[in-house]
Amino acid sequence: MFAKGEKASSNVFIGTAWVNLLVPDADGIYDCQVYDVVFEPGARNHWHSHPGGQLLLITQGMGFYQERGKVARRLREGDVVQIPPDVEHWHGAAPDDGFTHIGISPNTHKGAAAWFGPVTDEEYEAAANDGNRQV
Amino acid sequence: MFAKGEKASSNVFIGTAWVNLLVPDADGIYDCQVYDVVFEPGARNHWHSHPGGQLLLITQGMGFYQERGKVARRLREGDVVQIPPDVEHWHGAAPDDGFTHIGISPNTHKGAAAWFGPVTDEEYEAAANDGNRQV
Repeated sequence: MFAKGEKASSNVFIGTAWVNLLVPDADGIYDCQVYDVVFEPGARNHWHSHPGGQLLLITQGMGFYQERGKVARRLREGDVVQIPPDVEHWHGAAPDDGFTHIGISPNTHKGAAAWFGPVTDEEYEAAANDGNRQV
Repeated sequence: MFAKGEKASSNVFIGTAWVNLLVPDADGIYDCQVYDVVFEPGARNHWHSHPGGQLLLITQGMGFYQERGKVARRLREGDVVQIPPDVEHWHGAAPDDGFTHIGISPNTHKGAAAWFGPVTDEEYEAAANDGNRQV
């Protein structure tokens, strides 16, 4: 739906993903950044949190969202994820399916995301197994 | 992509549209509301403005965006509209095409939209003619 953006940094992503910054809000008048992220199968971002929270709108494919210490949630087109401020989490594609979401980072005046290291293959496989058990 | 929501109020819409409030943000932690709006052909909202601005992400169909005193802009899937605070405008479907956008109202703490009356048939037809001249 939106053009593929820049390749996501391998510093904070595993696998291949693209980020299209739809609303950079450089002057801060919306206090809100909006972007489209396309994940190839198996791609996911590192554990992270946002001081102002984050909202995800799933537009295509199949993926997962997991908060630290919780069971992963399976995501499909039309799903919405509300991630409160400072909640550590990751999101990404299913092993065999691409995944696209719009992301919204509100309260950008509160600062940038904090990053906590990669989602290991073991963590990812456990999340995929949990997610795949959900209807 | 998202479920059709509630029928939009005829107090501030002409024609038929549905609004699905994806992120109500009742407790204000995101300072941001997110919704999906489906317009039937010819449907549009009234002239209005938002004290915190508004962002539109076009996901389907063909429509128009117009600011008071300016030429209407034709909108298609993948287009993004950034509407600064207090700028009077309307958006809606083309005469012969449905139109769907995600809407984001940031800075919700600044208050609700202000409404300035319907987009008349003459205004709408002029906008459609201007928009249809754009490639």
